[in-house]
Parts: sequence; C-alpha cells; structure tokens
Amino acid sequence: MGSSLEHANLAADVLLSADLRGVDSHGVARLSGYVRLWKQGRLNAQPDIKIVHETPSTAVLDGDLGAGLVVAPKAMQIAIEKAKLVGTGWVAVKNSNHYGIAGYHSMLALDEDMIGWSMTNASPLVAPTFSKSKLLGTNPISVAIPADKEPPLVIDMATTPVANGKLEVKQRKGEDIPNGWAQDNEGNPSSDASVLKNGGAMLPLGSDREHGSHKGYCLGGLVDILSAVLPGANYGPWVPPFVPYVPMLDNPVGDGIGHFLGAMRVDAFRPADEFKQHMDNWITTFRNAEPTAAFNQVLVPGDPERKLSKERLKHGINLLPQVIEDLEKLANYFQIKFKKME
Amino acid sequence: MGSSLEHANLAADVLLSADLRGVDSHGVARLSGYVRLWKQGRLNAQPDIKIVHETPSTAVLDGDLGAGLVVAPKAMQIAIEKAKLVGTGWVAVKNSNHYGIAGYHSMLALDEDMIGWSMTNASPLVAPTFSKSKLLGTNPISVAIPADKEPPLVIDMATTPVANGKLEVKQRKGEDIPNGWAQDNEGNPSSDASVLKNGGAMLPLGSDREHGSHKGYCLGGLVDILSAVLPGANYGPWVPPFVPYVPMLDNPVGDGIGHFLGAMRVDAFRPADEFKQHMDNWITTFRNAEPTAAFNQVLVPGDPERKLSKERLKHGINLLPQVIEDLEKLANYFQIKFKKME
Repeated sequence: MGSSLEHANLAADVLLSADLRGVDSHGVARLSGYVRLWKQGRLNAQPDIKIVHETPSTAVLDGDLGAGLVVAPKAMQIAIEKAKLVGTGWVAVKNSNHYGIAGYHSMLALDEDMIGWSMTNASPLVAPTFSKSKLLGTNPISVAIPADKEPPLVIDMATTPVANGKLEVKQRKGEDIPNGWAQDNEGNPSSDASVLKNGGAMLPLGSDREHGSHKGYCLGGLVDILSAVLPGANYGPWVPPFVPYVPMLDNPVGDGIGHFLGAMRVDAFRPADEFKQHMDNWITTFRNAEPTAAFNQVLVPGDPERKLSKERLKHGINLLPQVIEDLEKLANYFQIKFKKME
Repeated sequence: MGSSLEHANLAADVLLSADLRGVDSHGVARLSGYVRLWKQGRLNAQPDIKIVHETPSTAVLDGDLGAGLVVAPKAMQIAIEKAKLVGTGWVAVKNSNHYGIAGYHSMLALDEDMIGWSMTNASPLVAPTFSKSKLLGTNPISVAIPADKEPPLVIDMATTPVANGKLEVKQRKGEDIPNGWAQDNEGNPSSDASVLKNGGAMLPLGSDREHGSHKGYCLGGLVDILSAVLPGANYGPWVPPFVPYVPMLDNPVGDGIGHFLGAMRVDAFRPADEFKQHMDNWITTFRNAEPTAAFNQVLVPGDPERKLSKERLKHGINLLPQVIEDLEKLANYFQIKFKKME
C-alpha cells in the first residue's frame, strides 16, 4: 500500500497483539478491511500526522486519514511525553481510522509507570436505550494500570454486552444469540445473530432499562464525545462505517473517526513503588476471593487475555480458513510470497 | 456538629441537589448517617483539608476525615484551577467520607466551559463476576459536559444495574427485585430485596457473565483504583462502610475513603463555542432518534434528573415519613427548631 516500513511494522504489531490476546476479530482478520478502505480512498497509507492544537497537558492530533493502527500509538507517545512534563497527558485524535484493539495503545504507558487510557468511536451499530436507530459504535474503553510483582491490570472492553465479533461467530455457526445482546428493526428483543444486517441493532451494556442499559448508553456516548466531539471527528450516526452493510452519511460533521488517549504518571500522585505494591495487594485480594460454585477462580481484568497470549505464543494461532483465504488473496494482489503453515 | 457555616451551607447544598434531582437516597435522608459517623469519631466536622502532593496537572488531597460533601467540591476547585493553567486538572482524594451525589461535583466544572469528572469508592456491597464476596462499592462515575443552547449532558451512574437505594425501596414495599440485580450468599441469582443483609451481594452492571458483568466489574474496579489506590485511601473490602450491616475491617490499607475528580478545559482541545455547538447537535440528534414502540422519547444523559428538578423546584419535595421523623430526631438532638411543612 506504500506505507513506510516503520508504519507497516507497527500496524502488524498491533494486529498480531490482538490475535495473541484472543481478540481475533481485531487481528489479521481485519487486514482485508483496511485494504478495502484504502482502495476506496478512505485510508491514507502515507499520513502526515500532526498536532493541530495543544496545551501543556493536552493535544489534538490530525491523523491525516491514516490507519488508527499507526495514528493511535503516535498519539499515546505524545500523551506520555506530556505526562512526563506536567503529570498527565491527554490527546484527542481526529481524521483517523479503525485503531485495532484498544488495549494495545493503553498498554504503551505501562513501561513508563503510567496509567494508560485508550478509547475510540466506531461504526454505528448500537441503539441507545429506547431508540430504534443505531447511533453509537461498540465504543471500547481500555485502561492499563501497572503493578509490581503481579502483571498489570488491563481493562479492555466494548461498552456493549459483547463485541460485534461474538455475533459474527454465532452467525457463522448458525446459532441463536442470547436475549439482551441485540434488538430487531422495531426495537424488540431478538435472538437472531444476523439481526444487524436486517436493520436491527446491538444493545448497550446493561441490555435493557431495568438492568441499566442507559448506563451502557452513557458510556458509549462518553467515548463518542471524548473521541470525536472534542477533537472534531465524526460522531454518532456520522462515524464512517467499517462494515460494508452500514451506509455512509454524506454530510460529515467532522474529519474521519476519533480516538482519545491518555497517560497519567503514577508518581504524579504517590511514589510509584508504593502504588504498585498496593496494586499487587488489590490484584491478589480480588483473585483470591472465594469463587461461586460454578467457577473455580475470580479473575482480574487482563487475566484471560494474558493466559491466551502465553498459550498462543507457545502453540501458535489457529486462523479460520476464510481468514487464511483472505490473506492469500491479499498476498496475490500485492504480489507478496504467501506461505501457509501446516 | 461544629462545622463552619461555609461547610454546613455547602453540605446542605449538595444534599438538596440530590433531592431535587430525584436521587432521594443521597439527599437529606442521609443526614442521620453522617451524624452517626460523626458520633463514632469517623467523620471530622472541622477538617483541615490539605494538598499533600502535586504536579502542574495533578494533586493528592488529604480530606482530614471530613465529610466528602465538603472535601470533594474543594478537590474539584483545585482541579479547575490546574485546568486553567495547563489544560486539565486531576485530583485524587484520600481520608474522606461519603461525598453525596457524584454529579454535584462534576457539574461544578460546567460554568468554566470544562468537562467535569467525579468518581468515588464506597462501602463494599458488590461481588465481582464469579465471586461470592462483596469487594466493591456501587462506585459511581459522573461526567458533566457543557453544551451551548441545550442544557449540559450529565452522566451520573452507579457501576451496578441499579443503585442500592432501589433495593431499599423494594424492600420497604415488600416487593421482589428482578433477577440480575443481586445474588445470595452462595452466589446464586436472587430476587430477595433484603438479600444484602443476609450475606448476599449486588451484581456489577451487566448482571451476569453472558451479558457483560465482567465489564461492570472492570468499571467498579477502575473507580476503586483511581479513587483509592492512587491517593492512598482504603480500597476493595477495606473501604470503611457507610451502612451499619457491613463490618469494618481493622487492618486499613489507607486513609478513609477516596474520590477522584477531574476538569478538562474544552478549549484545551478546540474552541469552546465550536465544541458546544457540536454538543447541541449531538444532543438533539440523539433526543430526536426514532423511539421504540414502548417509549415515546429517546433521552439524553441528564434529561430525567433535570425534568424532576424543575417539578420539585415548583411543587416541593415529598419526603418519606421516616425521613421526616429522622430529621426531627436530629433537630431535637441538636436543639434546632424543626418546622414541618404541610
């Protein structure tokens, strides 16, 4: 696509880290989607990423329609540099594209003994509470928090009951989805895994009003506002779609999609060692809580992904046949040698 | 109790704003609880609130065991002053007490054209996903975002399906609670509104694993860590209880309970007028989305509380008989003239 080697390596690193952590929907399976956007002229493979506004603790970054995979790490680097100087750094990004897994970017802060924040808006797939229309993406929030002897605590969550990828898996298997994940085009509960393609919508975290779906809607809205209204990207129904079945509105309210990255120096609050030792205590207290009968272990945010990462580093990653096929097609298109592992 | 007039007025303002906004559980109904803490020596009515650590964009505040009702607004004021200088300000607070409604504090930023953040940890009532034990409070998050002609967008939410007050109301009425709000002492789903008093626990937002309760657990954990591990307050099961039926652990890991307040100057990112006009567009777009058949209006965060506020400012606030009785007892105790409105 003409990307610099640096950008290509970085993007590959972000995608592979998703596959390692078990977020397969955001790994190399997405590569053909990025190429599709590039072919449509909606992704710039040679972006000139620039700060367009800043204060000591903030910046707005113009991603020049680059891949979020390379724009977001750059934004995080700026946030980290600002945190070094004034305690915290917050960078809102406009004119970007899909940035892969939220957790990759937040985790960049960990080596600096900082708490990393990462969020992004995304294709509108989610209906706010009481709404028929899809106005929000699955808008993820990730926060990475360093510990001492324990591995870091890493939150990386869509603001919906499940990520869209879970619906796609159910659809591929021809299975129903549980109530509380999605609604049909009239706003009624639906167990049809392909309901999104038929005018339905995903539901916010909380699923229904009685169980707090308005709170999931609040969180998705917050991510949208910080990621897009703040820097001047597209928000709500105007977010440019990644998935082909969401139509693109032709009256944009901003530039591209938006992200919001942050870094907080731990020792801007208390000595880093002290904080990290208490994080160890927090983590072991929660992990050692008495589990309910159905489960043998209380988990701490980041545990499942770390476990899977270890397994996959050892045994490799099993890609779905259609993903391998997709990659082979891409290799042919770009005239790159393609080697299948058996 | 010996509070300064300034502190007494401020605390009254915070409590009344909860009653006005319909968060009755956090209004004057709480007053007897604060007095109980003061009688136990756990609340200092004449606190010397001090900054104990700071950088240009951060501070840690020691609340000197004061009421959160007065400590948190002070913290927010510091956050606002820092934001004026370097774009954002973030203040973590230790050695405090229950701070009333989260939204009061975040909304202090609005007049300055800033986005206000407010969170606090609280008495452990919530079991993490897969856990029998109560390790988290209902740990609320509030974010207040200014708009132009539209009223501000105000998120103010517990990180549980419902606030604890909703269980208390059901209990008073002798009604069952819906599945997904709470579990019994073995971690099984429960519809018993008094389950907390019998060793049960509230559930995180999402209710069960299949509907994303691990995400509600992540959010409650994040609030706990930012509010307490960061400044050096008590966290997890060590948070000093407000409710009498939660036992107090005698090996504290920090000082009092903790809060986390933040202020972000909108024009640290883009011109305030531009931002606020786009917020108007965001708000009207969401409010005018096509509603589902069961509801006639899509709401925007803050709408229900604002509506109720207007009604109550006009017609007054109906207090429950037992709250009036409580207040009368307090008036007698402090030898204050008590006048009942009919």
